[in-house]
Amino acid sequence: MNYHSKSADQLRATQDELRKLYEQLQAAGLELDLTRGKPAPEQLDLSNELLALPGDADFRAADGTDTRNYGGVKGLLELREIFGELLAVDPADLIAFGNSSLELMHHLTTFAIIKGTADSTQPWGAGPVKFLCPAPGYDRHFAITEHYGIEMIPVPMNPDGPDVAACAALTAADPSIKGMWAVPTYSNPTGVTFSEEVTRGLLSMPAADDFRIYWDNAYAVHTLVDAAPTPLPVLEMAAAAGNPNRVYVLGSTSKITFAGAGVAFLGSSKANMDWFCKNISFATIGPDKVNQLRHAKFFGSADGVREHMARHRAIIAPKFKLVLDILDKRLSESKVASWSEPEGGYFISLDVPDGAAKRTIALAKEAGIALTAAGSAFPYRNDPHDRNIRLAPTLPSTADLEVAMDGVATCVLLAATETLLAHHDS
Amino acid sequence: MNYHSKSADQLRATQDELRKLYEQLQAAGLELDLTRGKPAPEQLDLSNELLALPGDADFRAADGTDTRNYGGVKGLLELREIFGELLAVDPADLIAFGNSSLELMHHLTTFAIIKGTADSTQPWGAGPVKFLCPAPGYDRHFAITEHYGIEMIPVPMNPDGPDVAACAALTAADPSIKGMWAVPTYSNPTGVTFSEEVTRGLLSMPAADDFRIYWDNAYAVHTLVDAAPTPLPVLEMAAAAGNPNRVYVLGSTSKITFAGAGVAFLGSSKANMDWFCKNISFATIGPDKVNQLRHAKFFGSADGVREHMARHRAIIAPKFKLVLDILDKRLSESKVASWSEPEGGYFISLDVPDGAAKRTIALAKEAGIALTAAGSAFPYRNDPHDRNIRLAPTLPSTADLEVAMDGVATCVLLAATETLLAHHDS
Repeated sequence: MNYHSKSADQLRATQDELRKLYEQLQAAGLELDLTRGKPAPEQLDLSNELLALPGDADFRAADGTDTRNYGGVKGLLELREIFGELLAVDPADLIAFGNSSLELMHHLTTFAIIKGTADSTQPWGAGPVKFLCPAPGYDRHFAITEHYGIEMIPVPMNPDGPDVAACAALTAADPSIKGMWAVPTYSNPTGVTFSEEVTRGLLSMPAADDFRIYWDNAYAVHTLVDAAPTPLPVLEMAAAAGNPNRVYVLGSTSKITFAGAGVAFLGSSKANMDWFCKNISFATIGPDKVNQLRHAKFFGSADGVREHMARHRAIIAPKFKLVLDILDKRLSESKVASWSEPEGGYFISLDVPDGAAKRTIALAKEAGIALTAAGSAFPYRNDPHDRNIRLAPTLPSTADLEVAMDGVATCVLLAATETLLAHHDS
Repeated sequence: MNYHSKSADQLRATQDELRKLYEQLQAAGLELDLTRGKPAPEQLDLSNELLALPGDADFRAADGTDTRNYGGVKGLLELREIFGELLAVDPADLIAFGNSSLELMHHLTTFAIIKGTADSTQPWGAGPVKFLCPAPGYDRHFAITEHYGIEMIPVPMNPDGPDVAACAALTAADPSIKGMWAVPTYSNPTGVTFSEEVTRGLLSMPAADDFRIYWDNAYAVHTLVDAAPTPLPVLEMAAAAGNPNRVYVLGSTSKITFAGAGVAFLGSSKANMDWFCKNISFATIGPDKVNQLRHAKFFGSADGVREHMARHRAIIAPKFKLVLDILDKRLSESKVASWSEPEGGYFISLDVPDGAAKRTIALAKEAGIALTAAGSAFPYRNDPHDRNIRLAPTLPSTADLEVAMDGVATCVLLAATETLLAHHDS
């Protein structure tokens, strides 16, 4: 029965039942973790061939480069060709770097703060800097901007991407808005994929010359359905819109091969890439090319990556289905929660009644189920409605996931009765 | 015959002979490169076992960590234990990071510029910042400070390390001196190893609270003689001197295993490491632990590293000897040049007559022999005497090295006659 239709007495009766369930949950002494978007061991096993690659006497890139020695800040062309196709970036404008796309985003930000961008009249650090933050979004993005004192302006996420009208109104009015976080495919945590219309809007809206969209295409190929969306050629689209330097395209193999030992990518206009390569040359002589060769040999081609992702899907799609089935079975009737049904990516975004997210997460914690901290998906960890919970189904085993999600559902319902009863009382 | 004792006519006659030699050199159409301290292919071959490590089903660290997944910003303990011994740093205070110690030095600098150090009352970027630069020194060090607008103050290098009295006079008088570059073992390019007395002086001299010595122990184990010097426990010594946060110890396996695919290290006080780990956590979830496991398995122990370095020595010591023999044979009698006879490291530092380095390097270039650009080993590329040339003997084959060095000797002598004749004429 819809909890919103229940009388106070009915809610109290329901709550008593839920309290009993919750006590059983606590008594089970669980230690389960749904916090981070980490691949499960079985997913990592898919890439174990990498552990013995490139092989004893194999160290030359296709162009003859000895990958063991210094040099080559742009990375190996054969790997850039594979991911150029998958990210819709000309390999000439794409570099293959270290093991972390976050590191690239951090560099892009600190370089701009200290030295300015390819289009800045002054370093970002010389004045106030603001970023647009589609929310809910990725906590590690928001952590970078918060750490460096960049003011974060939340903008709404719609089912087809960020609210372009809201973004455009802000950037047109305020030249101190220098950047925007974006996860265009299977967005973290909502699962939203930006439509072509939204994308075009973001690329063409009026903004400061040194306004940059961090186009973090972290889940470009991470589909839970038959095929990932065709990536939009955003660099070409930005150039056509007269804003050739607006977009930094980012990606990585972190959730394709090994989360800690993959390869990250950055693509942008020639002017931006010249700027980046000049700046990064003060920090490194070049990336780990042996690891890039290892990956190029492992994948072979962009189709090799797609086939590999199908094997990931076979492992994680059932976990997503399990979570959605439990949410449906336990929460649908109550009408106190809504959730995303993503076609890809690593998360399910769960909305509980306004004001009940912190309480739900606290209840889960006391029952030994770790959920991402309340507000994590919002700038300054401030979920204005205290309602969003990010679920990460990939890491736990199916058995653990089932127990954990059933427990989470109990916590959601129990917290919901508390919230609804508080309304009745007030 | 000593060129300084020659009459102008004698010098002109010598010059005529050298011109003929130089014309032959030019006619040979050489394309040789003595510019960078890169390992030779035979040195890289010593580590080819790494290309198939850690092996197909081997991905767990000693403590059970799955190295394939995210996490662990400090790196693998078993590798930190090996290099803790070699760098004289407690493994608890040492992190194993990415493939580049330069990257760590760059991070240390940009973090301090934007956010300040563990001891700063304000970010370095809020005021003027100066660094002491023992010169000649490492060009990539100087490039970082120049790029970020940090004023570089050259200080003299003595045979036992930087001139401590000169350093102390500067740091005591000027609190805007925030840092110092240092290569304490087999210094680049002089080959100088800092004595314990000099080290103690640098660690105890009066300086700003947020003054930091970048103790880049890049050549800690890179000996050309029977044993490398015992590394000084500089962190303990700094603490004993009352300046526990003064030193950042840096090192890497770049010239031990693969120059582009090794592991870099940073060690410092607990306060500094807490500061660094907090700051770096905004840039990365952790380093490539699979590569660290690969290296730990390959070395086994600190002695494994020492034995490995003995194999490097067997390859490169003859190259250093060849260069020194040619310098001795071709230049000793003329008394126009002096040079280092290093016991380790990657360079020989050659001093030609004042005002003749640029000309020597230009002559070599016109004969197809690339030498490091004049002034490279000095802040702002300004060799005040225009006399220093950095020779890097490791990369070329022995045959190429012999031809190249004989050519360089001819260029040195020819340039010297020009310089000396100009003095005669003036």
